[in-house]
Amino acid sequence: MARVKKKERQRLLLEQVKTKPFLTDEELAKYLEVSVQTIRLDRLELGIPELRGRIRNMAEKAQNKVKSIQSGEVVGELIDLELGHSGISLLRVTDDMVFAKTQIAKGHYMFSQANSLALAVIDAPMAVTGVANVKYKVPVHVGEKLIAKAEIVKVRGNKYFVWVKTHNETQEVFRAKFIMVSWGEK
Amino acid sequence: MARVKKKERQRLLLEQVKTKPFLTDEELAKYLEVSVQTIRLDRLELGIPELRGRIRNMAEKAQNKVKSIQSGEVVGELIDLELGHSGISLLRVTDDMVFAKTQIAKGHYMFSQANSLALAVIDAPMAVTGVANVKYKVPVHVGEKLIAKAEIVKVRGNKYFVWVKTHNETQEVFRAKFIMVSWGEK
Repeated sequence: MARVKKKERQRLLLEQVKTKPFLTDEELAKYLEVSVQTIRLDRLELGIPELRGRIRNMAEKAQNKVKSIQSGEVVGELIDLELGHSGISLLRVTDDMVFAKTQIAKGHYMFSQANSLALAVIDAPMAVTGVANVKYKVPVHVGEKLIAKAEIVKVRGNKYFVWVKTHNETQEVFRAKFIMVSWGEK
Repeated sequence: MARVKKKERQRLLLEQVKTKPFLTDEELAKYLEVSVQTIRLDRLELGIPELRGRIRNMAEKAQNKVKSIQSGEVVGELIDLELGHSGISLLRVTDDMVFAKTQIAKGHYMFSQANSLALAVIDAPMAVTGVANVKYKVPVHVGEKLIAKAEIVKVRGNKYFVWVKTHNETQEVFRAKFIMVSWGEK
């Protein structure tokens, strides 16, 4: 990208932060071809919190909305939720999540993240998992940040068809299709 | 069942313990229509350890065989393993495994038990999960003992098709079909 004027740069910065709220200042600087310091000054001027603050703000809003389970029961950190529609969670892969021999993350962590997120998006007082079809696309390692995005693609009575796609920083590592079953008064 | 003579009873007892090693003395007594004390005396005479001992013996043998992961990485207790063929694990559902609202076990525990067992049965130095199709048939609650049985139903090159069926005391609660992928020298 050719270097752009301040006004245009700040417009692009706002746009980036809105569509990809998990970019670090370093990543934003690289994308906009300016120094990290410039990004920090721009953020200050525009009133955009730093990455950690952005995630915290999103998380607080999201966690207050969860209905079918308790928000603390979401595996990873729930950072966005449109109840009855979609949700996003973040899971940092730590030492204790990998198999000792292969140093590859245990598949059940990606499943747990996706499964609990699929429950959290459902707009009903109670729900359970009925069916899950999952695919592991790329091995995951310590230090990776997994962003899972869930979307309700169909509702039939008390059955919810929920698709979850999980990315690391560079690619899709996992995807799941769930059928969840709800009960109780809406 | 009509009451049977001691010799026949002990034959039936041995048969039961062999085919259903997880029966308690109470269950064995009910099945054979004798007192629990009679069962205990029969076990002593026949040199059959009590339930806990039977499970411990099986577990020790099974855990020494695991190859693709470390035996401690099996979720639940690995109690039988025919490497390259089949395996059995036991998971006791405790307080911390259920959702607070519904008191129903979190689906990812059954998945984790099945997934790690499906890995453990594979006769290769390393393996990961490729695909999983799972079905939750009956909600599971605190106190239930889940017996998962895994069987390798097909092998194609380095791909293993593993079916896992999980029962509680009375019925099948969960089933899973996995495709696992192995690598490394056999």
